[in-house]
Parts: sequence; C-alpha cells; structure tokens
Amino acid sequence: MAIPCTHFISGEKSAIENGILIGSPTSTKSILTQDELKKIAAYKAVEFVESGMVIGLGTGSTACHAVERIGELLRHGKLHNIIGIPTSKKTQEQAMSCGIPLSDLNSHPIVDIAIDGADEVDPQMNLVKGRGGSLLREKMIESATKKFVVIVDESKMVDYIGGSGLAMPVEVVPFCWKFSAERLRMLFEDKGCVVKLRRSFGNGGNGEVEDDAYVTDNGNYIVDLYFKEDIGDLSVASDAILRLPGVVEHGMFLGMATTVIVAGELGISIKNK
Amino acid sequence: MAIPCTHFISGEKSAIENGILIGSPTSTKSILTQDELKKIAAYKAVEFVESGMVIGLGTGSTACHAVERIGELLRHGKLHNIIGIPTSKKTQEQAMSCGIPLSDLNSHPIVDIAIDGADEVDPQMNLVKGRGGSLLREKMIESATKKFVVIVDESKMVDYIGGSGLAMPVEVVPFCWKFSAERLRMLFEDKGCVVKLRRSFGNGGNGEVEDDAYVTDNGNYIVDLYFKEDIGDLSVASDAILRLPGVVEHGMFLGMATTVIVAGELGISIKNK
Repeated sequence: MAIPCTHFISGEKSAIENGILIGSPTSTKSILTQDELKKIAAYKAVEFVESGMVIGLGTGSTACHAVERIGELLRHGKLHNIIGIPTSKKTQEQAMSCGIPLSDLNSHPIVDIAIDGADEVDPQMNLVKGRGGSLLREKMIESATKKFVVIVDESKMVDYIGGSGLAMPVEVVPFCWKFSAERLRMLFEDKGCVVKLRRSFGNGGNGEVEDDAYVTDNGNYIVDLYFKEDIGDLSVASDAILRLPGVVEHGMFLGMATTVIVAGELGISIKNK
Repeated sequence: MAIPCTHFISGEKSAIENGILIGSPTSTKSILTQDELKKIAAYKAVEFVESGMVIGLGTGSTACHAVERIGELLRHGKLHNIIGIPTSKKTQEQAMSCGIPLSDLNSHPIVDIAIDGADEVDPQMNLVKGRGGSLLREKMIESATKKFVVIVDESKMVDYIGGSGLAMPVEVVPFCWKFSAERLRMLFEDKGCVVKLRRSFGNGGNGEVEDDAYVTDNGNYIVDLYFKEDIGDLSVASDAILRLPGVVEHGMFLGMATTVIVAGELGISIKNK
C-alpha cells in the first residue's frame, strides 16, 4: 500500500494529472491550493522521466508527489526498468511503498535525472534546500545527476537567497554545536544573521537543553540561519561556511539546478539553464 | 591513577624532563628512541603553559606526553587554575585520569594555547593531522586557539604535504562513502591519488564489507588519501575537498600552527610563525 503524500488532495485529480489549471486566473485563486500547485509542478517534472533511467528521488511535500507519480506510472506499465535513488530515509520508505526499485550512489554513481523541491529559488536558479532536513543526502545525489529538475510553487521564488526571511539550514556535528552556531552567526554578523538550533518539536529556540534537537539521517544537528540582508556573493559565502570545522554541509545549492518548474496561479513556467 | 602514554619510556626520565639530550650526536642515536624525542618536544611545549590558561589538549602518541606533563605540574602545584579542552574521547579519559579539570568549546570558545602532534609538517608550517582519527575535534579546538604549538619528532618534517607517502585523512559521512571516496580520488587523479577506507583492524583496504570500518568520535568514516605527487596549492585543494558533499573535514591544517617544536637527534628546534 503506497504511503500517500501528507497533504495529498484527492479532488480535481484528473485536471491536475493533465497539468491543466481550471478556470480563469481569478477563479483559480480559490480553486487551487498550494499543495495542488506543488502537485502540478511534480507531475510536469515526471514527464522528463524515461524508462531505463536512474532517478534521484527528492524529499519533502513537493517531491513526494513526484515519487507517487513515478510509482503510479510504473504500476500502469507506462514506465519500466527504472531505479530510484532516495534522498532520505523518509523518501526511501515512500518509494518502496510505491513499488519503485531502489539503489544507492555506491552502486549507481551517475544519476540520469533528479527531481526535488526547494525552499527558495533565486533568479539565477540557485536554491535553498533542507528545511525538511535532508540537505546532505540531497546534495550528494543531486550533485551526481545529469539533469536536476526543481519543482516549486510560486511562493518559493525569491529575489535573493535568504530573501524569504526563512531558514537557510546548515548541518553541523553535534560536538560543540553551540560553538559552531556562534561561528556561523559571526560569519554573517554584518548581515544581521540570527542562528537557531533546529528542534524536533516546536518552533526552534536557543535554550540550553538539546535533548529535543532535530537529528538528521546522518546523526547530525541543523543550525538554521536567518539573514536580515542579502549575503552577497554566494560562492564566497558557501566556501566560508564549509571551511568552518564542525560544519558538514549547508543548504545552498549553487549552480546545480538545470531546470526549474514553477507552478503558479497563472500556469506553469519552465526555466532551463 | 593516571593513564600512562602507551609507549611511555621510564628510563632517563630526569634528563628528558630537563629537555637535555645526552652525549654526542653519534651516541644519542642509540640512546634516544622516537618516543623519547616526542616526549622532549612535548615537555618543551608545556613550558608555554601558564596558570589560569584554557588549554587545548591534543591526541596521539606525542600529545599524550604533554597531557601527562600538565597533570604532573598540576599535582606538584607548579600549575593551577587551568582548564583542559580535550580533542578526543581518548584524550578526555587520559586528562581526567591525570586530574586535569576539563571543559569544552561551548563553555570556553576561546582557547589560550593548544598543544598537539602532527603527522606531517611542511616548511610553511602547514600540517597533516588525523592519522590518529581525531582530525575534526582537533581542528575545531585548534582553530579557536590563540597559540597552537605543534610538537613532533624530526621524522614528521616533509618537503611538501603528502610527501611522507603516508595517509592524508578525510572524514566522510558513512552514507555512500564509496561514492565520496571515488570523488576524492578523481579530484586528485592527476596526482596519482589512491584512496582507502580506514579499517579498525589491519592495514586498510577497499573491500566490499565495511563492518570493520574505523568510526570516528563523530560517528563518521575516514578515507585515507595517498598522493604520488605534490598536490600544489593547498588552499585550492582544501576548498575542493570541502565542497564535496559527504565530506565532513580533512586532515590538512593550513596556516594554523603558530609554533612548531621539532625534537631531533641533534636537539630541539623551535620555529615560530
């Protein structure tokens, strides 16, 4: 029995399956939810999938629609001989429940296509990912793919990375995480950076007790960075973060996306590198 | 009861304590072992330690002599009010057994002095560390210190990083480590790079079974890199390694050492930045 996407909406399925928005721009506003937009983008992305491909399977509320769709096409015999490379334990479970044959990067170091959501997309197709916590495995797999299709609803488009005011996650080793968090904060002090340890429950915080720290699939913690201003040159910022000992990976995916599919109230837009 | 250094040599203690080499260069060759040279360098480094200091305590067969010496000076009342920041679980145990009060980087983010060994030291005082497996915690602590005293016997001096022909360790997440190892190898393919997963037992290998993989204090694996040639610009190499998703840290400590103490058959040499 396939695990459904958490926010799966069963109504209007046939219209969405065809990637068609219903009604005029004015009327769609009340018809399509954010989750439906995500689904539209996901289904569009799966059109790039061909039989025989090795496919990176993303994690999160948008990517899960793509995984579900791939499973559906397999069951209906419209796709065959594919191999999925899941980007998280959660996606692995979902993909298995959908009947998608799975492998990993050790056995398949070259991936044909990866489909995944993003938390932010800037005009240069740079991304923030990892608010769902799977940034490291996603980055490993998506750095090994020939084609990386990003699927988002229009709310994820930003003028610059960090521009949503939401978290840019950094995976750190648990050992002396406060020290690492403080170093990260200092790195972007002039950008009004605030850091918070991600918690398993609640909205985060910066207390003394880390019993409820969110733990990644790799056994690490996540420090969320919030910027008040544009952080400028992203490559410079990326290297500065990676040079801090204690940092495992960050959520900026720079120059990696080859296609971005944006589903909005006025339709789908596709941007290629 | 203090945990002794594994290769602690009890003979000739008073001569070594005073940092004095016995006899002529010819005769010392047969008198002083490599371990005694390590001890001489360690004792010399501890002379930089003052009461009231926060001290980074290194890991390995050389650093353990420094930890032991600090404990001794504490017990004899020659040092007081110091706090040790251990760079590994092993050093933590040793330091506790020596009666050194301990803390961590979260509570003491600024370290006055750190004393540690190294596996290689080049003419610019760049280091390779981590053959003992503690590179990440060592780098975190030694990047937070005002003074970083490196203690080595003369066999560790190399013309260039990698020049000993021994391992340059890279800590990687266990997830798809073979993929990461292959990417590391490809990064230095033109330098004749060979990679091996570090094993808990035996001399390493690259087999299919990783049940015996060496696991770091942070729950990660270590891929050892062996170079046939000089890898060139170390900053460029460092950033290239750190940019690989799956890599947590590497064993090159660039521009971090402020003092290198080398104990050789002809005496001690001290080099400052």
